[in-house]
Amino acid sequence: MSSENTSIQMFGIKTPIIREGDDIVQILDKALEEAGLVPIDGDVFVLAESAVGTAERRAVRLASVNPGEKAKVLGEQYGIDPREMELVLQECDEIFGGVPGAALTITKGVLAPNAGIDASNAPEGYVILLPEDPRKSSEIIRSRLEQRYSCRLGVIIGDSRTQPLRLGCSGIALGVSGFVPVEDARGTDDIYGKPLRITYKAVADNLVSAAELLMGEAGERVPCVLIRGAPVSMINESPDMPTIPMEGCMYFGNIIKGRLEDKNCEKNV
Amino acid sequence: MSSENTSIQMFGIKTPIIREGDDIVQILDKALEEAGLVPIDGDVFVLAESAVGTAERRAVRLASVNPGEKAKVLGEQYGIDPREMELVLQECDEIFGGVPGAALTITKGVLAPNAGIDASNAPEGYVILLPEDPRKSSEIIRSRLEQRYSCRLGVIIGDSRTQPLRLGCSGIALGVSGFVPVEDARGTDDIYGKPLRITYKAVADNLVSAAELLMGEAGERVPCVLIRGAPVSMINESPDMPTIPMEGCMYFGNIIKGRLEDKNCEKNV
Repeated sequence: MSSENTSIQMFGIKTPIIREGDDIVQILDKALEEAGLVPIDGDVFVLAESAVGTAERRAVRLASVNPGEKAKVLGEQYGIDPREMELVLQECDEIFGGVPGAALTITKGVLAPNAGIDASNAPEGYVILLPEDPRKSSEIIRSRLEQRYSCRLGVIIGDSRTQPLRLGCSGIALGVSGFVPVEDARGTDDIYGKPLRITYKAVADNLVSAAELLMGEAGERVPCVLIRGAPVSMINESPDMPTIPMEGCMYFGNIIKGRLEDKNCEKNV
Repeated sequence: MSSENTSIQMFGIKTPIIREGDDIVQILDKALEEAGLVPIDGDVFVLAESAVGTAERRAVRLASVNPGEKAKVLGEQYGIDPREMELVLQECDEIFGGVPGAALTITKGVLAPNAGIDASNAPEGYVILLPEDPRKSSEIIRSRLEQRYSCRLGVIIGDSRTQPLRLGCSGIALGVSGFVPVEDARGTDDIYGKPLRITYKAVADNLVSAAELLMGEAGERVPCVLIRGAPVSMINESPDMPTIPMEGCMYFGNIIKGRLEDKNCEKNV
């Protein structure tokens, strides 16, 4: 963590529509050139999961999906197309409730409405599943970009989430490569030299939220944002996103537990 | 919303330690000059609630607080100093559970562990309450900054929050002035011309998360970040932060409701 950094620049990278099987690094390469941008050491690329998922052929034609009995029941319960619900059940690790239009799941270790499956920015009649392994995807993309530009970079596969009781989506990192995604501030002092109480910074999530200012959710064709000057700790690894267990979570700690116990929740097979 | 914006700049504004009764606008004025920065139309200032709270004399000496019976019981239950717990009870609208070290409350309409009360960056033996009225604070600061620099600005009073099941803090806007804090994207199309499903963007929260990349929680004395070029919709108002009711919230919808019903929760008087 470099404390000298006092300025950050962010560039939205416009691209053509990304299609199944596209090479996302080649597309970025061209888009960066058109924008007159050359990546430098420490730059972090935030990529929209929908773009990466599409390139990785994770778009699924709904008409090709045969919903099972459970998907029909839960689809009815949450007001979700049973074929999409079937995909949610296939994709998620666990499903534990929901509201109209959204089944609440844990998918690839992350809290995700509808297993992160999205019809926005998918071709008509299609939905896009999350990248199979966002950590791996970010690693491959970083490795290729670093080779191409001969510098050390960070890559994040980012998604959108609502926060509890908030209107509107902010950012979440699904997979990261090349930097420390959560900074541990334990042991550092506050402005009065006392130990800090808030001890972790969600650096990767904050980078995605920052990128979402430029990305938009709409037809803006900005699936990538380049962030320059962010005070991140670069590493030559692709660390797992650290999570906390339900018991230790402020929101779920003593709330969901009781509900899980009274078996009112659905569990995936 | 200007879709031409494809680049954002952020500047961390270093200041001296902010003390009770300080004039935060004068401090910013001096710090901006030292940094060689002149605000321009559309700039958004993100200010840390702890700095604003301190200037507004919201620091409370714990030794001056007399905890009541309820504060003692709940303090014991959540592992919180009973005097701080007393302040939490006084400050919050509602308290509905918690985990060790954090009582989960709604305070000034926002989900806030320990009513947003923080000992970090407070003098030894003190805690800092949230600004009395963050919306009003942001309005006053904006009005004075706009007058000083003869341009249209945005101001956010920002705080840190953990997200469900995530390690690390990201940003949340407590009060905003001068721009639309949540963009309504309903009616816009995705890249294929289909209506969008994700319909709101938490612009203000995302701006705070972006600012937190430079702010740090530690003794970095960067209580303010100036964000330039963000595609926000400027308005001459200080809108309330839009929230969603528990029933409509993905996380609390069918989870907390059941718990509230079985009266396992504490309620503030």
